[in-house]
Amino acid sequence: MKQKPIISNAVIRRLPRYRRYLRELRSSRIDKVSSKELSELTGYTASQIRQDLNHFGDFGQQGYGYNVDVLYAGINAVIGLGRTYKMVIAGAGNLGRAIANHNYYYKTGFIVTALFDKNPDLIGRKIREDLQILDYADMKEYIEKNDIDIGIICTTKDAAQEIADIFCAAGVKGIWNFAPIDIEIPDNVCIENVHLSDMLYSLVYRMNNKTNE
Amino acid sequence: MKQKPIISNAVIRRLPRYRRYLRELRSSRIDKVSSKELSELTGYTASQIRQDLNHFGDFGQQGYGYNVDVLYAGINAVIGLGRTYKMVIAGAGNLGRAIANHNYYYKTGFIVTALFDKNPDLIGRKIREDLQILDYADMKEYIEKNDIDIGIICTTKDAAQEIADIFCAAGVKGIWNFAPIDIEIPDNVCIENVHLSDMLYSLVYRMNNKTNE
Repeated sequence: MKQKPIISNAVIRRLPRYRRYLRELRSSRIDKVSSKELSELTGYTASQIRQDLNHFGDFGQQGYGYNVDVLYAGINAVIGLGRTYKMVIAGAGNLGRAIANHNYYYKTGFIVTALFDKNPDLIGRKIREDLQILDYADMKEYIEKNDIDIGIICTTKDAAQEIADIFCAAGVKGIWNFAPIDIEIPDNVCIENVHLSDMLYSLVYRMNNKTNE
Repeated sequence: MKQKPIISNAVIRRLPRYRRYLRELRSSRIDKVSSKELSELTGYTASQIRQDLNHFGDFGQQGYGYNVDVLYAGINAVIGLGRTYKMVIAGAGNLGRAIANHNYYYKTGFIVTALFDKNPDLIGRKIREDLQILDYADMKEYIEKNDIDIGIICTTKDAAQEIADIFCAAGVKGIWNFAPIDIEIPDNVCIENVHLSDMLYSLVYRMNNKTNE
């Protein structure tokens, strides 16, 4: 295997989008697609698409386009799908439950194995038959014992850093943060922030200035 | 007022982030900040920050930096904050409720006035004293009568386009879409998509390739 190239964050952001469209094509039983057709679907230029996909290998064939199944499998492999990722959620409010249930449908190997909360009224309750709310106090040990890959923060802003510290000390490799704050983490842990208010403000700016993405 | 310049989507995305850091500085009673200090906070380069903020007016003063209050107020004005935005949510499951309650805390003028669902067990229920779940069948009329600005889609993928069509027909100016599908909307409506699975895949890619943003 050749040395991994450095891929820009913008390309990484586009990959899941390509994947989504390819999944749709597959479910419509379409077996090949050109970069021009992908351009119409995704809104990226055909040349950008070719450049993006070239980062990851020789998926295309000139004059033929891309084999949908091969490209889909290739993108899954590049992202790292095709294996199981174990996740826990800190904060069992509406957002935590929404993520727990939403995730249930992904069917791409992401399993929420437990939620954690400090509220005694919630601890011990079941979200689903196979999913329970446990005590924050037991979170570090649980993560270590169960080899959890990803910790999801659905707490308030004030609790978020403390939760992240526990996640990192317990050995998660990634944090998905929904709390509206930027968290400090060690270099060996990756983080994805979902700042909902930032997204809302970006929408409002565009509404007020009538520009769409 | 001079003609509005065309602002790239990347700049629009950074604005709310500047706003967040300025809010923190204000609550720490810090009254001025240099582009270098903003760079350390935000992770963007000082020259990028100066370039970004220059798009919107003369906020900075050479050798002095930025007045935090003035810059904060300026960014709020550029985004379009300082007025009220009325929003409704389609889909009163966990995610819809999470957004409804989350939003409650923003305190920046965004008010969810109603949730809508088709489930008879949910219709009529109250989320809070001032917030009720209403029937999908009444959504169009409600939006028209109450002059709703933003429609939020928290339904399944399958219902999302139909909901968006009702939102647009009823006259919303923006759609905040949490359903995992790209929706077609007319040119006069703006949309912000929150594709949670895309974000998760981007995190996983970085975990597997040990790169952080």
